Amino acid sequence: MRIALDAMGGDFAPQAVIEGAILAKSSLPADVEILLIGREATIREHLAKHNVSPSLFGIINADEVIEMGEHPTKALTQKPNSSIAVGFGLLKAGKADAFCSAGNTGAMLVGAMFSIKAIEGVMRPAIAGYVPKEDGRTGIILDVGANADCKPEVLNQFGELGSLYAQYVLGIEKPKVALMNLGEEEQKGTMLTQATYQLLKANTKINFVGNIEGRDMFNDKADVVVADGFTGNVILKMAESIYEIMHARGIKTDSFFDQMNYEAIGGSPIIGVNGNVIIGHGVSSPLAVTNMLRQAQQMVTADIHTKIKNALNEHSS
Amino acid sequence: MRIALDAMGGDFAPQAVIEGAILAKSSLPADVEILLIGREATIREHLAKHNVSPSLFGIINADEVIEMGEHPTKALTQKPNSSIAVGFGLLKAGKADAFCSAGNTGAMLVGAMFSIKAIEGVMRPAIAGYVPKEDGRTGIILDVGANADCKPEVLNQFGELGSLYAQYVLGIEKPKVALMNLGEEEQKGTMLTQATYQLLKANTKINFVGNIEGRDMFNDKADVVVADGFTGNVILKMAESIYEIMHARGIKTDSFFDQMNYEAIGGSPIIGVNGNVIIGHGVSSPLAVTNMLRQAQQMVTADIHTKIKNALNEHSS
Repeated sequence: MRIALDAMGGDFAPQAVIEGAILAKSSLPADVEILLIGREATIREHLAKHNVSPSLFGIINADEVIEMGEHPTKALTQKPNSSIAVGFGLLKAGKADAFCSAGNTGAMLVGAMFSIKAIEGVMRPAIAGYVPKEDGRTGIILDVGANADCKPEVLNQFGELGSLYAQYVLGIEKPKVALMNLGEEEQKGTMLTQATYQLLKANTKINFVGNIEGRDMFNDKADVVVADGFTGNVILKMAESIYEIMHARGIKTDSFFDQMNYEAIGGSPIIGVNGNVIIGHGVSSPLAVTNMLRQAQQMVTADIHTKIKNALNEHSS
Repeated sequence: MRIALDAMGGDFAPQAVIEGAILAKSSLPADVEILLIGREATIREHLAKHNVSPSLFGIINADEVIEMGEHPTKALTQKPNSSIAVGFGLLKAGKADAFCSAGNTGAMLVGAMFSIKAIEGVMRPAIAGYVPKEDGRTGIILDVGANADCKPEVLNQFGELGSLYAQYVLGIEKPKVALMNLGEEEQKGTMLTQATYQLLKANTKINFVGNIEGRDMFNDKADVVVADGFTGNVILKMAESIYEIMHARGIKTDSFFDQMNYEAIGGSPIIGVNGNVIIGHGVSSPLAVTNMLRQAQQMVTADIHTKIKNALNEHSS
């Protein structure tokens, strides 16, 4: 399989990205080819600095870079030779099986929507966040930022998309899907969560276990947490900050809290598009990049977007 | 001053509440009189069990108890002799300066709205949560559950209410008010946060510092975090669970994480009503009850509801 990696994306690119790719090369299966996208001379220079043969990687030249602060749609239009635009080009052409970048999140989202596009029947693709569980397992929450405002039908579908992802990529049989809410009772919540509850409850394609509260984020009540992108974003960033605060205060973390470190996860997949796309954290370190590549490998192996496509088509036929 | 305490409220009442009152009696200033409200015989029995003279407390009989699962409005109507109804009666009559209960949150909220009522000009009273800061200070977030769905004007006023509370009760000069959002930029967020941002920005009564993200919850960017009751509730409960998980996993907490323990805080004040009301955690321990009484004492000393009333009247005149 070929995983395309935006060598220019992220606050510490290209150095951290290329170091992450080198790290990944020694830990991922031999059949995983990593395609580094960016300014070829720069990439070769960094590989030489680490005494790594450029022949270990595919190198795809892309002269332009979309910066972190740029307007996504404008940037993609004005920079067709940017690493992000080139990455999506490879993905769309089937020359890469996955595309990862720690660059401009908005550009990654817009790029996915305009190149490989949403799977037919998917109302709104979502960005998912991995959630460590106290029992050592991993769950997901979606959306974590692609859709700030959501309608009940969209949240209902997030339940389905998340369930398929948890089943095929995380290997969880009959994933428990829950709705993030401010109380457990059915009638609790906002107008949005109340309406969503009824849809999820009636949804026979998922194993809906009801509402959960903020305190249940890390326990085993749910494998898949459904939330609008605003709520999911706040939760994910707060969780990340907990690890950072513990670290800064010299508190020894354990296997659970170590998984709250964004580096241990890698990135956040976009779920519901016709391909495997992962958005990395802006501050991605080499370790984070390595883990993002590992996530991508798992998504490709699971062929998750085809699974989602088939599941949605089954339903509509 | 006289602080009324619902002896029957909470999962471990009356025992935990009465033990908390006894604890508080030895740590609060001598001029703080605690009024225990509940079944008099039961209260006396528990005091006797601890060899504490009933003369140390005011004891107000209330034969009925509103249970945790009861419908707030119905329960208050059907149980006029419940400890919560009696407590609000005392507060309204000026026979108590504050009322605290770890009982039915909804009944506490409805009781406050129907007895002492919202301060004129307050659109929606809010429940505030105390937030520990990495630098050792304490901030607040509001709302944390009284209003799941909020309009921009309501959130804007939460900024004012929270700012006054932080100033007068927490002693923070010119409190920094921020809006919880999914990005720092002005144009980020939901339709609600985008509209709220503009109101807060134009609000000359507060020191608005802009948007903050989930990762900023515990740093010094803001003293007062404005959020709808849904978001605030998820944040607060998640923060509480972090402490519990650390504790359960045997991770040694420090002065910062210790403040994430709900027991260290006590309870959540209702802000914007004509009196001092605190809602305790359902599982309140004796220590939590003691700290809830201390919070009440601080609210009474600050005379916060009069301060809010005056500030709102100043504005409208």
